[in-house]
Amino acid sequence: MKKVPEATIRRLFYYYRCLKNDDSESPKYICSDVLGNKTGIKSTLLRRDLSFFGHMGHKGKGYHKDELQDKLEKILGIDQEYEIALVGAGNVGKALIKYKKFRELGLYITEIFDNDLDKIGRRVGGYIVKNVKYLKETLEQNNIEIVVLAIDEEEIDEIIDQLQETNIKAIWNLSSARLDFDKNIIIIKEDLCCSLGSLIYNING
Amino acid sequence: MKKVPEATIRRLFYYYRCLKNDDSESPKYICSDVLGNKTGIKSTLLRRDLSFFGHMGHKGKGYHKDELQDKLEKILGIDQEYEIALVGAGNVGKALIKYKKFRELGLYITEIFDNDLDKIGRRVGGYIVKNVKYLKETLEQNNIEIVVLAIDEEEIDEIIDQLQETNIKAIWNLSSARLDFDKNIIIIKEDLCCSLGSLIYNING
Repeated sequence: MKKVPEATIRRLFYYYRCLKNDDSESPKYICSDVLGNKTGIKSTLLRRDLSFFGHMGHKGKGYHKDELQDKLEKILGIDQEYEIALVGAGNVGKALIKYKKFRELGLYITEIFDNDLDKIGRRVGGYIVKNVKYLKETLEQNNIEIVVLAIDEEEIDEIIDQLQETNIKAIWNLSSARLDFDKNIIIIKEDLCCSLGSLIYNING
Repeated sequence: MKKVPEATIRRLFYYYRCLKNDDSESPKYICSDVLGNKTGIKSTLLRRDLSFFGHMGHKGKGYHKDELQDKLEKILGIDQEYEIALVGAGNVGKALIKYKKFRELGLYITEIFDNDLDKIGRRVGGYIVKNVKYLKETLEQNNIEIVVLAIDEEEIDEIIDQLQETNIKAIWNLSSARLDFDKNIIIIKEDLCCSLGSLIYNING
């Protein structure tokens, strides 16, 4: 299969969410114009996005809504549930724990770590914040393969040393730190400053 | 000038931040290999990013650090300060208000709005949460041109109606709502679910 662009993947979530939130029984089919309009994406782009995954439409009818929703769920890998460990129980971390929309995708933050003695032992969103020195141990015991980093850049080295020795598959990096690993770990960087900053650039551009 | 890709703009922030945090006086120059290495970006890509904005390097010496930092500051528009209004004093909103890195870029959230009577009148990060019905009025009085939306999709219509009648230039949209305006407003959508979700896709891919 051709490599699917990152932007396509993100749009698949829009299509999926739109179908999921559409609780009308009829009509059973939706055409690309309507789905495009609902998600704010041009129908030509929508059709191209979906075409990466084979033929999905029904001639003259459009897409079967339930069928498309199921397929998107499988493609995106959200037909399963995932346990996630969060490192950093600061303001951003707390917001993520309470972010309900992750759960709608089957993504559950079930472990929280921090190195701040004032935070360790406290309850955040129903979970006790653990000392980050138990990160490696906890990930291994619970077979957690996804880690979210919401910490300051200065605290990253200790975390990397521990993660290096685990079997984690992926990191969602909300810190501004650059991550270097000796092994293959999928890393997606989410930099809120660059995102808001690019808005500023566009205002002046 | 050629249209500058969004990804280039985001990387300019990495270069800028790296230079800003480098408080060593000497050497005065930095070559693309070193700056690339520090930011985790290939030097060929870094040179291409910077080439959008004319010739910046000095032959045989590399980039003059202070000069490059100043230029990037101007290009990105962060040589000024900006007042920002935040709509939504929930968990995500609260995290944004307390997010210090925005201030390092000259971006200040100075007004906070919500429609929840339990939140209105309370102090968050030093600011009193105002009733969202005063949004339009407050933006106009204070000449605020940038709005951050950190609200639920269901609450969006009232906000759009008010923003439609203001002179705002840009919206950073952290809600999952689709925004439709009759006029030209720069909108950058930041969807945390799609971002974390794309990590899941990549694990399974």
